[in-house]
Amino acid sequence: MTQNLNNIRIVLVGTTHPGNIGAAARAMKCMGLSSLYLVQPPFGFPGADATARAAGADDLLAAAVSCETLEPAIRDCSLVVGTTARERSIPWPVLTPEQCAKQSLQAAADGPVALLFGRERSGLTNEEIDCCNAVVNIPTDPAFSSLNLAAAVQVLSYEIYKIVSAQQPVADETPKIPLATNEELEYLYEHLQRTMTRVGFYDPVKPRRVIRRLRRLFGRAQLDQNELNILRGFLAAVDEKTPPE
Amino acid sequence: MTQNLNNIRIVLVGTTHPGNIGAAARAMKCMGLSSLYLVQPPFGFPGADATARAAGADDLLAAAVSCETLEPAIRDCSLVVGTTARERSIPWPVLTPEQCAKQSLQAAADGPVALLFGRERSGLTNEEIDCCNAVVNIPTDPAFSSLNLAAAVQVLSYEIYKIVSAQQPVADETPKIPLATNEELEYLYEHLQRTMTRVGFYDPVKPRRVIRRLRRLFGRAQLDQNELNILRGFLAAVDEKTPPE
Repeated sequence: MTQNLNNIRIVLVGTTHPGNIGAAARAMKCMGLSSLYLVQPPFGFPGADATARAAGADDLLAAAVSCETLEPAIRDCSLVVGTTARERSIPWPVLTPEQCAKQSLQAAADGPVALLFGRERSGLTNEEIDCCNAVVNIPTDPAFSSLNLAAAVQVLSYEIYKIVSAQQPVADETPKIPLATNEELEYLYEHLQRTMTRVGFYDPVKPRRVIRRLRRLFGRAQLDQNELNILRGFLAAVDEKTPPE
Repeated sequence: MTQNLNNIRIVLVGTTHPGNIGAAARAMKCMGLSSLYLVQPPFGFPGADATARAAGADDLLAAAVSCETLEPAIRDCSLVVGTTARERSIPWPVLTPEQCAKQSLQAAADGPVALLFGRERSGLTNEEIDCCNAVVNIPTDPAFSSLNLAAAVQVLSYEIYKIVSAQQPVADETPKIPLATNEELEYLYEHLQRTMTRVGFYDPVKPRRVIRRLRRLFGRAQLDQNELNILRGFLAAVDEKTPPE
């Protein structure tokens, strides 16, 4: 699956602001992507703006492939997907980001896949969209659909990495405390009822209802052994300080 | 559902770079979110950097609520979720961005929901995480997990808007009884600590750890008003029966 990530290429077409290229590289690297192509990179790239925004992803900038036209950036690709915010007059297969991620990973098993991101102001041209197998649209509020370029790269890369990371066994580094057993929970509920009676706390109308609510609460919380011990220790301390009825 | 979006609040805690606040506002607005809170905003906010990166979302910056501490930013919230990149020593319920989006939209039907984003370098403190009901983690490549602040806001906001835009009917699992607010939970924790001290119950080695564990337990359980009243009523009954130290 990591091999598939290596085969997914982010192609930034006609980007105006070098800083956006850096931010896009950072977004990619967080999501396990490394292959960056730049079609007509702006004056000022490479440079300080891009490096600053890359924040440690400058290896992607250094390895980025620059091209004068789109064609060499997608020539060897079996799947090319263009991002667009607009409705096109010619209907195109429009993927959701999730569908785009799934199809990209599948196609990447066979060879390079290119995700195209257009200019900050105007996006991809119709001619560039014509080179795509499909178009992907990131849902945005119709009242404000001005997604930043690197943010768009972030969302599509995230959807890809989400699939990959879900398939990897996630290293569980958090110390696992065993859950309380059902038997132990029953002891807790008995103890709660005993101590509540002892201190004179009860719902005068529906006494059993209080215990039912607490059962539901602690059952839902799935108590671990530590938490159970704290609660029972507290109840025992209350018992010790209060005279029996 | 739009009403629910209005109830979801992005809380940026201790942000260092004003530009990141602008970029976060832009990310929010694209995804239909508008409520922005800033805890200890940086010198230079408001200012040109934030406005430039907001790129048209400057109405969110103008309406942003600034606070000196976290407490007023989350006081009225029924659900508080903290973002974290790190594994914590005490295990916390860790949501995926999708789970976070679903739970946020559900809880937002009852009242404000806060999504907390920490400092660029160091994230949220343990004390800030202690105020959360749950923690959300955006999956990133373990080799490079340096997600930009606005990129993190983008991903979580996107997952929320994805649900709204798909008009997927969110299963209404919210309890009929309103959830306890964060402020009420804080009163409960204070009361617990007071009563535990009163009856002489404490972990002799790590007294604060006991309270942290109980915070985690009750935060995770998302107490409703009834449950909160039962617990506080019980504590009050214990107080009445036990002499002060």
